[in-house]
Amino acid sequence: MIAVTPKPPYYAVIFTSVRTVVDDGYADMAKQMEELAKQQPGFIGFESAREEIGITVSYWKDQTAIANWKNQMDHVLARKMGREKWYQSFKIRIALVERGYDFEK
Amino acid sequence: MIAVTPKPPYYAVIFTSVRTVVDDGYADMAKQMEELAKQQPGFIGFESAREEIGITVSYWKDQTAIANWKNQMDHVLARKMGREKWYQSFKIRIALVERGYDFEK
Repeated sequence: MIAVTPKPPYYAVIFTSVRTVVDDGYADMAKQMEELAKQQPGFIGFESAREEIGITVSYWKDQTAIANWKNQMDHVLARKMGREKWYQSFKIRIALVERGYDFEK
Repeated sequence: MIAVTPKPPYYAVIFTSVRTVVDDGYADMAKQMEELAKQQPGFIGFESAREEIGITVSYWKDQTAIANWKNQMDHVLARKMGREKWYQSFKIRIALVERGYDFEK
């Protein structure tokens, strides 16, 4: 679903990735990390889709919340496994959301 | 593909959408708009994936480039058709990319 986010400013972490062919627990870990992220202080929302590439955008209150999530122990382990097994390549961009608008039919 | 982007700062436009069931020229128009965006001054790159929701992130040199693209005539028409036919709902977020890092296996 489209994430419900507050009036800007807030932060977006844009994670774009290309997977390897290795599955080996990927879906379980992705789900687990999504649940864990939701419990972090400063977490706002989450959007994800994958075709040729995967795009996951998570939204956070501020840079401190992002730094804390980056250093969260289980997430550090998951990221290590990601680099070793699941991702061929990825790019992470940290961005300050300045403006936003919605359309609803 | 993962977009090749320069050293920050630059801008990201995060477009998250839910489609209607109406097809009626959508794929053609999406492709046409992607090609047109690439020709705009200040365009940097483009990433897109769709599952339950669609996420398209386009990258731009600055806010002026984004404003010009928003007002480009063919794009104005495409956006109108999008609201009338193709999108049930969408959210657009304009964000300043402050940091980025890459991983390559």
